[in-house]
Amino acid sequence: MTSELETITGGVCAPIGFRASGVTCGIKNPDLPKRDLAMIFSDFPAVTAGVFTQNEVKAAPVRLSSTYLKQVPPRAIVANSGNANACTGTVGMEHARRMADSAAKALGIKRREVLVCSTGIIGVPMPIHRIEPKMPEAAAALGRDEESAANVAAAIMTSDTRPKSEAIRVKIGGKEVRLGAIAKGAGMINPNMATMLCFVTTDAKITKAELQAATKEAVDRSFNRITIDGDMSTNDTVLVMANHQAGNRSITKGGPGSRLFREALTELMVRMAKKIVADGERVTKLVEVVVKGAYTDADAEKVARAVANSQLVKCSWNGNDPNWGRVIHAVGYSGARIREEMVDIYFDGLCAAKHGLVTDTPIAELQKAMSGSKVRVCIDLNLGRGEYNIYTADLSAEYVLFNREEYAVTKVK
Amino acid sequence: MTSELETITGGVCAPIGFRASGVTCGIKNPDLPKRDLAMIFSDFPAVTAGVFTQNEVKAAPVRLSSTYLKQVPPRAIVANSGNANACTGTVGMEHARRMADSAAKALGIKRREVLVCSTGIIGVPMPIHRIEPKMPEAAAALGRDEESAANVAAAIMTSDTRPKSEAIRVKIGGKEVRLGAIAKGAGMINPNMATMLCFVTTDAKITKAELQAATKEAVDRSFNRITIDGDMSTNDTVLVMANHQAGNRSITKGGPGSRLFREALTELMVRMAKKIVADGERVTKLVEVVVKGAYTDADAEKVARAVANSQLVKCSWNGNDPNWGRVIHAVGYSGARIREEMVDIYFDGLCAAKHGLVTDTPIAELQKAMSGSKVRVCIDLNLGRGEYNIYTADLSAEYVLFNREEYAVTKVK
Repeated sequence: MTSELETITGGVCAPIGFRASGVTCGIKNPDLPKRDLAMIFSDFPAVTAGVFTQNEVKAAPVRLSSTYLKQVPPRAIVANSGNANACTGTVGMEHARRMADSAAKALGIKRREVLVCSTGIIGVPMPIHRIEPKMPEAAAALGRDEESAANVAAAIMTSDTRPKSEAIRVKIGGKEVRLGAIAKGAGMINPNMATMLCFVTTDAKITKAELQAATKEAVDRSFNRITIDGDMSTNDTVLVMANHQAGNRSITKGGPGSRLFREALTELMVRMAKKIVADGERVTKLVEVVVKGAYTDADAEKVARAVANSQLVKCSWNGNDPNWGRVIHAVGYSGARIREEMVDIYFDGLCAAKHGLVTDTPIAELQKAMSGSKVRVCIDLNLGRGEYNIYTADLSAEYVLFNREEYAVTKVK
Repeated sequence: MTSELETITGGVCAPIGFRASGVTCGIKNPDLPKRDLAMIFSDFPAVTAGVFTQNEVKAAPVRLSSTYLKQVPPRAIVANSGNANACTGTVGMEHARRMADSAAKALGIKRREVLVCSTGIIGVPMPIHRIEPKMPEAAAALGRDEESAANVAAAIMTSDTRPKSEAIRVKIGGKEVRLGAIAKGAGMINPNMATMLCFVTTDAKITKAELQAATKEAVDRSFNRITIDGDMSTNDTVLVMANHQAGNRSITKGGPGSRLFREALTELMVRMAKKIVADGERVTKLVEVVVKGAYTDADAEKVARAVANSQLVKCSWNGNDPNWGRVIHAVGYSGARIREEMVDIYFDGLCAAKHGLVTDTPIAELQKAMSGSKVRVCIDLNLGRGEYNIYTADLSAEYVLFNREEYAVTKVK
């Protein structure tokens, strides 16, 4: 983080002109009161960038929002947890439209100014009749205070154990610009269909092209570098709304302030990405896999992903086992160009293997290094200058137990 | 299986002119008596085909055996369990050579006539001093009886819960030809470094080119279609020895008997592959994933592998959960060309999803279908004629617990 960035309070409500709320519809279970409808509203039309799932199976709200985004500058985001509205066919599309429609009515704006997101179970029709009547309540509850910021973060949680909210301030051309974000977990951490959502608000003045480019760069350096179980959700969505209220000179591609704004947006998303990985009672550690010395960055990425996604490697981390053999074995099948006799492996700075062979670092020390809640596993291929880093977690027995049953239980209910 | 194939007893000792033994060296733990050195001997030089791991990190015995295989027709295979002799550098190569050397001396043959395999922990030097003195005992114990066949199968086991041995007979050109095999498990089933070994003996007369082609085809249709955790071992090896004692006219590529021999070899390897997946207390079911209706076979394979390797899908199988949402989600990110609204998903013949939408098949019936110890998950993409099938298993909490610690424990011992 550069010294120019300052952490502030307020989450998505920190930037000027944004309000938020989180209310309870009983989407997953009407008898279990839990905030499950989130609303973010901009008092002014907002230039908005979006990055959506690459999964060929796309949820109805993803289809709808990516279309709306091309048409008009949005004013609001509404997101529900408990049902993903995915694999729900034409009825699902109708439900997504109705969600946008009821939000628009409650807010006094046009349907196409509302972006819709959903997260939760796949293949079960949305209980839209529980959502529509609650929209006026969500609109009435919109606020800029800490409570509103907390409620909106809580309402998008599924199996997350804590809300994820952050805000930062940065000076651009002498003007203070604020960025706020909320997010919810993915994959292993959030297995009830593994959706990752992140909504960013900013009062920066910025062109749409630059905002889209900055968003893509930030996502590539944050959410695209977390991998929990290699799965990719049908609903993954990152939205960044910029409402131009900070008074800065418009940020353009390569123009003044562009570098600073990108840094700030990236920093914010990296923080959210790390929170996503670290969250969850079923995960015991956040592991950063750092690969250096590859022929190319692409080779380094292959190695990082193979190691981070190896089921056997993740199990050993769960047991604090400094098992470099499993690591080098994943390095070997990664598809990257490697030379076994050049590979060095470090656990939190301690060398476990040098030139592909065991070192005399005492096992007890390596075990201690692996026992922390944050561990860095560094693999130096000693071949070139390519590098890549990725954030991941261990695999626990509790994760499996948690994920054994879901669909049948939900369907029968 | 065609009616021309007949199952017989005797394992690798069933074909004429092969003997085998399994003895105890105490490789993993001198205090724990367990057969850990396997020997297969052909009374005659044997045309031999080999398929080795594609992992860039290759164990010393893999390097040695693949070199020897090009030089002379082998007479013997020696394989140890408990130590993989991988990531052991030049010392490891020396140990592999010494293993071949001591076996050759005990058998009165040349070192290069011995193929060496190892399976077990990675990165720990081989206790070669425990293996060398036992070679004469292994040679003396060579036999053709059921006990010898059982001992050799037992000696290559690591965390396998039962030995894997099969033999079949087929008439080729009026002559009886026998094929026998032993194998040991992989990945999830055998996580102590996940090596898959399979040794096949046959008394068929066959050219080296045809044997290599038949072996490659059989491996593609069997071991390359099992996936447990997506990992690929540093030691995976399939060896097929043919010693020409059956009296059949030599089998050549495309010549008489070629089709029948390939069928027999493939059937034998498919049986071994299924045994590998189904083995293990920590696995509760063998799952065949069948993909049909893809544009191409390659697309079908992408879908099959994505579904079979999805951690979330495997967890749901463990809970007998007919969670078609997780299946279609993996279909979506597989990289294959698919259309969500065309996808049908069946659990043991029961339709859970039709055209990408939930069906009215009762959940209780789908749960019952998922509860068996053998389940077929069929995905019809309804786009073309491409198809592929793959065998895999569920992911259990016990698997994770079993794999949490290994290296540190072994190193400290």
